[in-house]
Amino acid sequence: MAGSTFGNIYRVTTWGESHGAALGAVIDGCPAGIPMSEEFIQEYLDRRKPGQSQFTTSRREGDKAEILSGIFDGVTLGTPISVLVRNSDQHSNDYSNIEHTFRPGHADLGFTEKYGFRDYRGGGRSSGRETIGRVIGGAIASEVLYKLGVSVKAYTRSIGPIEIRKYDETVMRSDPLCMPDADASREAQDYIAEKVRDHDSVGGIIECRIEGLPVGIGEPVFDKLDAELAKAVMSIGAVKGFEIGDGFAVARSLGSENNDAFYMKDGFVQKKTNHSGGTLGGMSDGDCLILRCAVKPTPSIAKEQKTVNDCGEEVNLKITGRHDPVIVPRAVVVVESMAAMTVLDMMLRNTSAKIDTIEKAYRNCR
Amino acid sequence: MAGSTFGNIYRVTTWGESHGAALGAVIDGCPAGIPMSEEFIQEYLDRRKPGQSQFTTSRREGDKAEILSGIFDGVTLGTPISVLVRNSDQHSNDYSNIEHTFRPGHADLGFTEKYGFRDYRGGGRSSGRETIGRVIGGAIASEVLYKLGVSVKAYTRSIGPIEIRKYDETVMRSDPLCMPDADASREAQDYIAEKVRDHDSVGGIIECRIEGLPVGIGEPVFDKLDAELAKAVMSIGAVKGFEIGDGFAVARSLGSENNDAFYMKDGFVQKKTNHSGGTLGGMSDGDCLILRCAVKPTPSIAKEQKTVNDCGEEVNLKITGRHDPVIVPRAVVVVESMAAMTVLDMMLRNTSAKIDTIEKAYRNCR
Amino acid sequence: MAGSTFGNIYRVTTWGESHGAALGAVIDGCPAGIPMSEEFIQEYLDRRKPGQSQFTTSRREGDKAEILSGIFDGVTLGTPISVLVRNSDQHSNDYSNIEHTFRPGHADLGFTEKYGFRDYRGGGRSSGRETIGRVIGGAIASEVLYKLGVSVKAYTRSIGPIEIRKYDETVMRSDPLCMPDADASREAQDYIAEKVRDHDSVGGIIECRIEGLPVGIGEPVFDKLDAELAKAVMSIGAVKGFEIGDGFAVARSLGSENNDAFYMKDGFVQKKTNHSGGTLGGMSDGDCLILRCAVKPTPSIAKEQKTVNDCGEEVNLKITGRHDPVIVPRAVVVVESMAAMTVLDMMLRNTSAKIDTIEKAYRNCR
Amino acid sequence: MAGSTFGNIYRVTTWGESHGAALGAVIDGCPAGIPMSEEFIQEYLDRRKPGQSQFTTSRREGDKAEILSGIFDGVTLGTPISVLVRNSDQHSNDYSNIEHTFRPGHADLGFTEKYGFRDYRGGGRSSGRETIGRVIGGAIASEVLYKLGVSVKAYTRSIGPIEIRKYDETVMRSDPLCMPDADASREAQDYIAEKVRDHDSVGGIIECRIEGLPVGIGEPVFDKLDAELAKAVMSIGAVKGFEIGDGFAVARSLGSENNDAFYMKDGFVQKKTNHSGGTLGGMSDGDCLILRCAVKPTPSIAKEQKTVNDCGEEVNLKITGRHDPVIVPRAVVVVESMAAMTVLDMMLRNTSAKIDTIEKAYRNCR
Repeated sequence: MAGSTFGNIYRVTTWGESHGAALGAVIDGCPAGIPMSEEFIQEYLDRRKPGQSQFTTSRREGDKAEILSGIFDGVTLGTPISVLVRNSDQHSNDYSNIEHTFRPGHADLGFTEKYGFRDYRGGGRSSGRETIGRVIGGAIASEVLYKLGVSVKAYTRSIGPIEIRKYDETVMRSDPLCMPDADASREAQDYIAEKVRDHDSVGGIIECRIEGLPVGIGEPVFDKLDAELAKAVMSIGAVKGFEIGDGFAVARSLGSENNDAFYMKDGFVQKKTNHSGGTLGGMSDGDCLILRCAVKPTPSIAKEQKTVNDCGEEVNLKITGRHDPVIVPRAVVVVESMAAMTVLDMMLRNTSAKIDTIEKAYRNCR
Repeated sequence: MAGSTFGNIYRVTTWGESHGAALGAVIDGCPAGIPMSEEFIQEYLDRRKPGQSQFTTSRREGDKAEILSGIFDGVTLGTPISVLVRNSDQHSNDYSNIEHTFRPGHADLGFTEKYGFRDYRGGGRSSGRETIGRVIGGAIASEVLYKLGVSVKAYTRSIGPIEIRKYDETVMRSDPLCMPDADASREAQDYIAEKVRDHDSVGGIIECRIEGLPVGIGEPVFDKLDAELAKAVMSIGAVKGFEIGDGFAVARSLGSENNDAFYMKDGFVQKKTNHSGGTLGGMSDGDCLILRCAVKPTPSIAKEQKTVNDCGEEVNLKITGRHDPVIVPRAVVVVESMAAMTVLDMMLRNTSAKIDTIEKAYRNCR
Repeated sequence: MAGSTFGNIYRVTTWGESHGAALGAVIDGCPAGIPMSEEFIQEYLDRRKPGQSQFTTSRREGDKAEILSGIFDGVTLGTPISVLVRNSDQHSNDYSNIEHTFRPGHADLGFTEKYGFRDYRGGGRSSGRETIGRVIGGAIASEVLYKLGVSVKAYTRSIGPIEIRKYDETVMRSDPLCMPDADASREAQDYIAEKVRDHDSVGGIIECRIEGLPVGIGEPVFDKLDAELAKAVMSIGAVKGFEIGDGFAVARSLGSENNDAFYMKDGFVQKKTNHSGGTLGGMSDGDCLILRCAVKPTPSIAKEQKTVNDCGEEVNLKITGRHDPVIVPRAVVVVESMAAMTVLDMMLRNTSAKIDTIEKAYRNCR
Repeated sequence: MAGSTFGNIYRVTTWGESHGAALGAVIDGCPAGIPMSEEFIQEYLDRRKPGQSQFTTSRREGDKAEILSGIFDGVTLGTPISVLVRNSDQHSNDYSNIEHTFRPGHADLGFTEKYGFRDYRGGGRSSGRETIGRVIGGAIASEVLYKLGVSVKAYTRSIGPIEIRKYDETVMRSDPLCMPDADASREAQDYIAEKVRDHDSVGGIIECRIEGLPVGIGEPVFDKLDAELAKAVMSIGAVKGFEIGDGFAVARSLGSENNDAFYMKDGFVQKKTNHSGGTLGGMSDGDCLILRCAVKPTPSIAKEQKTVNDCGEEVNLKITGRHDPVIVPRAVVVVESMAAMTVLDMMLRNTSAKIDTIEKAYRNCR
């Protein structure tokens, strides 16, 4: 139970250190009968791949997905799906200078205290490469959701102080920063370039929209839809805040402003506004679900920092090696993946809420 | 698995509708040998009790804790602890006008879609009274944590636009708004009074500090300490945002600002600043853990609102009955309880991380 | 996670010591829309009640079920169902002579080592009264199963050396030993009476039949239907063996004898024999599921036994107080309850196996 | 949650179809600091390898273990351990004649009903090759147990009617049938040879001894040590019965015979006999734990059988291809593995039972 498994019905277990032989994921509980291929998963993996632009690390890996089980004749079998990605471009010696040093902003100290020692090669299990397994799980979840009419789309909302002013989906997927606003993206690129010159790094905000959710998804008490999404997204390294709908702005809002009025449209109950961000009382309310998270600046910077080593000596540290100056663009597909896995899991849990639905499932059995 | 259980080792199951016979909690996995009494639990329950000031509903309930199992001769047995609170002051008829109406900002629509019908009496399971079980679980967790040298303290950080300017623990527990700043509290009380006159409601921010945590608590991937805390706190009704340490401010920060430098003090690795809020890579870093959450304004307001009823007709609604104009002060002990339950559960999980610790646990057995 | 919760989707948490204030169960994940009442649960509880015949302890308790949540207007709400039974007839002083002694065949030593001390009053959590919560969970599960066309029936197959020679359901429920064969029951009663005169106790075998199961219930690897049933039934105190279908007899059988031939009947695949006992590869095969378990003789006997006390002194012990000379008849409804809970849980898990079923569940949502 | 994960703290997820690219296991929650190598795991895998004697299928596979993560410098890191075994010797075309036929004694019908279709190549997920992942998990668990002073040893107790008359550990591991009695093994080999000539198959009983267990392992109610072991062992394909200690024989025993008297030896409480098989009230009692399970005859036999195909036509079937005439000898290491995984998991769960133990774990932290 050391926390490498996510989900209850749709359950993703990830494994792999950044500089070990390989990384991967096992997906258990995926419904049978979903079309699936290595190419489909690869598209998602390519979105988090390093070496795609000047703003991502120059470490170049194929990160090629290999399906080892659970899929036969192009369709999911209902059995666990095992997908593996080999580590190919490992510069373990890049890390020799940090083998005995606790890097500021990193988990080195925690690992040492918890386990008695640590895998110093590139962060081991707390490296960004750990997200490969998440993206595999998210790609497959997205395809199941597609069959159920649900879409999940994440994008960069802001980089440092530069925020998007419009939402253009056609731009979003090709933009090097995953921003749905080409102008804002250009400004953000300039901003990053400036900070890179200072040997520094920057943060930002990722937003995610989930459309097509039926009403009532999520469990009313501890396993609220928003609570599960919060855990999912906060479990991504470098994420320090999460909000849904109006989020932190509700603290200064009034009840009369924050409540969304209901009205009727096409025979369905709809909301005139969406301050709630698509959840009420922990369940989906039929509106677009909107969540946001704050991503901290990359902790590995070339600037000199003060720290200590594992002999308890105070030392100065400049982190060399290949590191993204900003985590945000590559984390976009990870946020999308975690959201997709969560929403699918909650939809599958929900099928046993009502006796009518269960009776229908078994009606023609015998 | 309908989500009424929280935790893995220290596991709290809550039950009860706001207008049923009773509410309660069953705590399984609590270590044996902890002193515990009804009086101790009662102190925590009293902190969330209605009717304590002009800012909380006038519904007066004894909310008296009755321990039914798991404690013998004043000490926990290691068996499940069942605690019950009878509902005594039920005005079910207060709710007759909303029996067939979907209240804006409430979960009525979700319940109806999910289960086919709903318990309309005061919100049923999504009422604020559901938190009684959480506070019971939190009170007991706090006592175990006390034995382990860990303290958890929550308080009101802001009400609407009024934020605390200082942190005075002596004021905090007696303040009607649970603010650790008497001046800010007076301003906030005026602010609430003004909004009540407008038949409106207000929101705010709750902050929580956890001190004494050993380094390395939390699991490195999905079950990060911050991720589990996010789920715990976001699962409280009305919470719409969660952050840890600098939270959303990291988005505009630089790596060189956000990284906390390590140094040595008294033979331990310490941090010069605490931008991280006490967690790095999902594990505690030895510093004070600081989290914040945003609480929306009470959705039940006396102002007229537009909505629809369950026949699909658009109607106007004024919510009468007894409702707090602000949820924040009564939610403080709930945030504290959820944080305590989470931290204890993660500490208990952590005891199996290292073979040395496990060997020590069994050394004298035979 | 101290093991007081059973099930994944349909989840039963039990609590209560034999001589505490009360015992009970919380059932989470029960589908909404099932008719339910205290009277219905009471019928199941009455089947395990003491004081019903000369073969059960003379301790007389009302064991009256009180529903505290989860049911409104006679129907399950989908929220947790809390049911409580007060302990009324407690003779705690009956146990003073065993406060410091480890009773042979009992868990006293285990409790002391595990928790550091124990609740000596009547066995505390390992008393037979612990099964009250199981029967509550089983009663409700049985009603859900009834809606799905599944019936679960347990009965006594043998007492000591006396085995049933026929299966008459009409006799079964009124027979004092729950045997479906009146002649065998009379012989068994004589056998018990004889052993009681010797201050001794006897064991037996309980059998359970589950009819109406759809094909394919159970998960193919670790969570096989038979594996889950084995855990469920072996978790009942005093059960020392479990088998399904031909059970231990398969060890001497041949493949050509043990395989059940398939044939067609009424358009469905059927089996000519049922050596499998209704499961193949961990999934239901459409046939009647048949399981059996072995129940040891009551360990509390009036005969003198050798043992040690908690000072490490060897002592002689005669256990006085009220104890059944045979556990079997009162355990029948407990076996039935555990089987019902397991089968329902596995059926609810199964609804997410196929994408077609899930699509159907959500088809009319929006 | 489709049931490919076993355990709570020490958690093993297996994946892989018999004729896919590979099979494997991911072990999460393994304590850090355990020496581990591919060679060590290989020794366990070799014990279940086909092609070792005339009594096992002639399918020859290297079944070579490849460690992909979780181990660094020969020691477990505390992170998930991923181990992979490639499928090398696949004769998929051997299965073409059963692609559309439901084999008696197999799970083909269940898979088809559950998932809508099935992977007909060699049984897919319900093949005996699925146990490769279990043995990997068991090998690693055994090494952790070794550090804690616990040993787990399984062996063949009987084949058809031939039962062992003595227990000689030195013989056991080299015997082709894993029997600890060379004479009985020779008789059993003759018996099998005779049945093979008849195109038939045979069953048997496997026994397992666990020594060195501390008192108090196992949770008192649903998660009893014997209940968890029952699930673990019954989840192995072809196992139809499970018992502990005297097992089914208790049904005919008397309380005065079945109770084990306690006495003092070397300052510890001991039992004079071991009818209990090492557990009382679901917890270990300090004695050797003894369990047994019944394994059915291999269902794939060359003798002609009656069955139906997936068009609903009745057909005759002779199963050709390579199949063991008896499952027992190759299942011995699987039983041992499941027992080891279960016992380790329960020991790790147990460390949070007592506040003293937890305090000790954290005493030197700060």
